[in-house]
Amino acid sequence: MREGVVLALSGGVGGAKLALGLARVLPADQLVIVANTGDDFEHLGLSISPDIDTLTYVLAGLDNPATGWGRRDETWSFMETLASLGGETWFRLGDRDLALHVERTCRLAAGETLCSITADVCRRLGVAQRVLPMSDDRVRTRVRSDSGWIDFQDYFVRQQCRPVVRELAFTGVEKARPQTEVIAALQNKVRAVVICPSNPFISIEPILAVPGLRQAIAGCGAPVVAVSPIVGGRAIKGPTAKMMQELGLEVSAATIAERYGDLLSGYVVDIADIASASALALPVKAVPTLMTDLATRESLAKAVLAFTDTL
Amino acid sequence: MREGVVLALSGGVGGAKLALGLARVLPADQLVIVANTGDDFEHLGLSISPDIDTLTYVLAGLDNPATGWGRRDETWSFMETLASLGGETWFRLGDRDLALHVERTCRLAAGETLCSITADVCRRLGVAQRVLPMSDDRVRTRVRSDSGWIDFQDYFVRQQCRPVVRELAFTGVEKARPQTEVIAALQNKVRAVVICPSNPFISIEPILAVPGLRQAIAGCGAPVVAVSPIVGGRAIKGPTAKMMQELGLEVSAATIAERYGDLLSGYVVDIADIASASALALPVKAVPTLMTDLATRESLAKAVLAFTDTL
Repeated sequence: MREGVVLALSGGVGGAKLALGLARVLPADQLVIVANTGDDFEHLGLSISPDIDTLTYVLAGLDNPATGWGRRDETWSFMETLASLGGETWFRLGDRDLALHVERTCRLAAGETLCSITADVCRRLGVAQRVLPMSDDRVRTRVRSDSGWIDFQDYFVRQQCRPVVRELAFTGVEKARPQTEVIAALQNKVRAVVICPSNPFISIEPILAVPGLRQAIAGCGAPVVAVSPIVGGRAIKGPTAKMMQELGLEVSAATIAERYGDLLSGYVVDIADIASASALALPVKAVPTLMTDLATRESLAKAVLAFTDTL
Repeated sequence: MREGVVLALSGGVGGAKLALGLARVLPADQLVIVANTGDDFEHLGLSISPDIDTLTYVLAGLDNPATGWGRRDETWSFMETLASLGGETWFRLGDRDLALHVERTCRLAAGETLCSITADVCRRLGVAQRVLPMSDDRVRTRVRSDSGWIDFQDYFVRQQCRPVVRELAFTGVEKARPQTEVIAALQNKVRAVVICPSNPFISIEPILAVPGLRQAIAGCGAPVVAVSPIVGGRAIKGPTAKMMQELGLEVSAATIAERYGDLLSGYVVDIADIASASALALPVKAVPTLMTDLATRESLAKAVLAFTDTL
């Protein structure tokens, strides 16, 4: 086994499940999670970072298992009242969740970086692992459908992924600087880079599109392993499969590995997708990847780490 | 009895009690309430208008009678969580109350006026009377204490009126334009102008300091009657008496009438203050002014209106 940190690239819900598994089987100082910020947006005057927050809440044990987003033991007085005032209610903000958005918005306005705010929030909520935004600079995923370009959360939440996706863009990414701490971590000892089973198009590719990040990952010398978000030829949750079809791609575990290309040193697929992955020209490990509870999160994390250690 | 609207000048808690009394004894289209906005401030990135909101909640029957500010049936998840994140909690914002601040902040940022937002909120909350901010331009009350100038809410809420007040200033007032609808109302038929029993220094004088407003009131041709906030030589609530002492003024009903000077055509004092008011060179009506319930709010409103009709 190589020494060093495990660097996990993650979006929200699906990625956070494996991130939690990794957090439970690794010492806290040996896990660094790089979060997608392409989903971030400004809503009701607030700076909202859905993937960072889902990761933070999941790692803090504060997540809402029923929804996959937001906090448990949430109350909804704000949203109820906002509706009565004619405000925009398509993005559901619980009263407790809201406190994080208000606090972040204030601190960003005062000049603090997203990375520093995230670190402080994690510390206060008892998350010992580092959660690092891929960049402190503004990157915004946009979706081109048949009716033109729309903001990601408009597509994802307001229109519930109904528009047909023709193209994706990460506005601002060409000027975004990679998170200094991510680059620093990649220049130190790295045991493995794990690409969590997040949606590649909207969760992982924004991270890899930050100038210098893909190269730094490729050059860190550690194995880079992706975990397939496809199980039995289908996406577990969210628009991954729908998006693949709309983008003219075959919905299969193999397609996703091909998407990541030569960045990968290995690929973890579900046992139901062995056939799909058999033609790939890279080491493949097939294990059960469905994470239905804490035990399956942990066992997938262990299997992924064991696999990376063989590469 | 003169025909026309009653125009009430009001701050928050004390003024809102009489405003509610007036609202209950007048047809809705015959009451216009001019609200102080000198207390407005920006906090946690939000635009907060305490006096407008207190008036709106009181008139909508949504006020919290236990506190005098905020909403009834309030929940506090936001504030609790903000505290856990290390955010500023000295200004208590309930989850429901917060919705109004977030909505107002968004709409101000989008270019809507405070007056238009207030009108829409009143309509949605079922308030049929007009509540008009004294100005849509930014006026901010500041307090000079022995340690320098501080913002009003810092003095009032954070420091709970502990600093000794040496001077008050209404920053921005010299450039503030009076609310168009207030001027328009004063140019139409006015039955009476009622100065509610609010703190003169921090609730009424900011209104009167808006260029043109005092003159428009004085020139409207209707009686102008103030209701004393002093009962038996003491202030009912808030820092009125403390502030008068610190400003070197005698704490009495008479002092307040003198403060308003020749603007007044009549003065309503509590029966306990007849002696204090006897030396005033203007018509005085003494009635019970303590508003402990809905009935006493209504009876004071009736007494004030009956008095103005004699002037």
